[in-house]
Amino acid sequence: MSDLPETNLDAMLKTMNAIKGWGHAMGVRLTLVTCERVEAEWTVGPEHLQPYGIVHGGVHCGVIESVCSVGAAVAAAERGHKGGVVGLDNHTSFIRAVRTGVTLKAVATPITRGRTTQLWQADIRDGERLVATGRVRLLAVDPEQIA
Amino acid sequence: MSDLPETNLDAMLKTMNAIKGWGHAMGVRLTLVTCERVEAEWTVGPEHLQPYGIVHGGVHCGVIESVCSVGAAVAAAERGHKGGVVGLDNHTSFIRAVRTGVTLKAVATPITRGRTTQLWQADIRDGERLVATGRVRLLAVDPEQIA
Amino acid sequence: MSDLPETNLDAMLKTMNAIKGWGHAMGVRLTLVTCERVEAEWTVGPEHLQPYGIVHGGVHCGVIESVCSVGAAVAAAERGHKGGVVGLDNHTSFIRAVRTGVTLKAVATPITRGRTTQLWQADIRDGERLVATGRVRLLAVDPEQIA
Amino acid sequence: MSDLPETNLDAMLKTMNAIKGWGHAMGVRLTLVTCERVEAEWTVGPEHLQPYGIVHGGVHCGVIESVCSVGAAVAAAERGHKGGVVGLDNHTSFIRAVRTGVTLKAVATPITRGRTTQLWQADIRDGERLVATGRVRLLAVDPEQIA
Repeated sequence: MSDLPETNLDAMLKTMNAIKGWGHAMGVRLTLVTCERVEAEWTVGPEHLQPYGIVHGGVHCGVIESVCSVGAAVAAAERGHKGGVVGLDNHTSFIRAVRTGVTLKAVATPITRGRTTQLWQADIRDGERLVATGRVRLLAVDPEQIA
Repeated sequence: MSDLPETNLDAMLKTMNAIKGWGHAMGVRLTLVTCERVEAEWTVGPEHLQPYGIVHGGVHCGVIESVCSVGAAVAAAERGHKGGVVGLDNHTSFIRAVRTGVTLKAVATPITRGRTTQLWQADIRDGERLVATGRVRLLAVDPEQIA
Repeated sequence: MSDLPETNLDAMLKTMNAIKGWGHAMGVRLTLVTCERVEAEWTVGPEHLQPYGIVHGGVHCGVIESVCSVGAAVAAAERGHKGGVVGLDNHTSFIRAVRTGVTLKAVATPITRGRTTQLWQADIRDGERLVATGRVRLLAVDPEQIA
Repeated sequence: MSDLPETNLDAMLKTMNAIKGWGHAMGVRLTLVTCERVEAEWTVGPEHLQPYGIVHGGVHCGVIESVCSVGAAVAAAERGHKGGVVGLDNHTSFIRAVRTGVTLKAVATPITRGRTTQLWQADIRDGERLVATGRVRLLAVDPEQIA
């Protein structure tokens, strides 16, 4: 676990959740960020649906991409990596249909955190029930590669 | 190729593009829909980015999920299937970083269109350059399974 | 857990391990088979290697395919399915190189066991160390589809 | 295309096909090796089957792993990389069941050949009919990482 004092975690989450972009577009709020575990939540609204009225698979893929990427970036930073990490492959499986009004929780944990690549897994649940699960392979890149 | 007269295609695209939901949230416009090929476009804006300023992988996964699902649904309908199709697994690979202002094009084509499951592939390009590519396995479901 | 008395499990394992085919070619021995967990072991020999002298990724994919398929077949049979199950997609990640002489253990557990499709996961370990991990999506098919 | 004179290709194929290991165990013969395309063939025998009498999915995964790895290794060598390449993830989809006696052909082509990672795709066909298709992400590693 990260040894960040809780107030630092709060400050970091506040900063990260204030970033505009796709995380914001998805409506996802990070609630825990360490190099060993990332958690996030969002409430399903009409904007998340596909035409049948269930959550679009791309939302699950996107949330899984986010939480795995955040975890891998923190893990890389904690071992002194100066650049960032970028996703190589995202493999998400859909388990159960979800409709509007439900608050979902995503939890990402590392499978391997190598120096060059990392593999993270994230599960999305509606309470106890697994809704989607995915794995993201990420690559550590030099600062100039994403400049 | 579908034998839809062009005016019917136009009407169908208009209807499909008017649906609110995740396709709308992503800003994607379908430009061709047949049982053999689906095309869509979108222009990268600040809402599509991850914190490094490049397109969030979840956007690519989501667009790939959309165009493959639309193709599989049309293919299932054309062979008389009364229900819909739902995604089982989405496996998307990221090839090249993209920044704002670029208009991307996604093209989905079938790998196999079985009665029970289908496998579609979609490539996302910035002009000639491949940006992301993915495969989606889909399952034909009965009407009541998605009611 | 399966309620098979232990002697029945022993008899089933003996029967399954006597089947010639790819499991035999891989040198894998099933050591536990229930609808909730499948275990298998094999010892790495020179026939399992790729040219660099480490275990060929295809061996890991193949073992993962085997143990997930066996678990899904048992789960389908226990709910009364009369046909079999076939793999749709196998997604295996390689974590750590392994050389000859090591005995590896694979453990498969279900992620979802639906009537039509199942998703199983298998981890391969060298003692405590994770070597490879994969997920297999499987489809229940009618007897005549594999006849 | 590689500029190898044909006699050199023949010599290289002869050398590569003489290597014992998993390629040999699978019975696969490389028939073309360049940095842009790798081809291989094998004839399905009883040793390749799973208990239903069709080719075990692990065989397809293994052949796909082989031909993609060979292609990526050649591509890395041609750009001066001194180490080797190792597979990170193999994602194989099964399209059509195959029985004994059939000669299958695998063709691998690159999707992207970066300095650090490459993504290759391979299709396995029985004549014109697609039997399996997969993608392998590979990582260039330093010589000492596989020593």
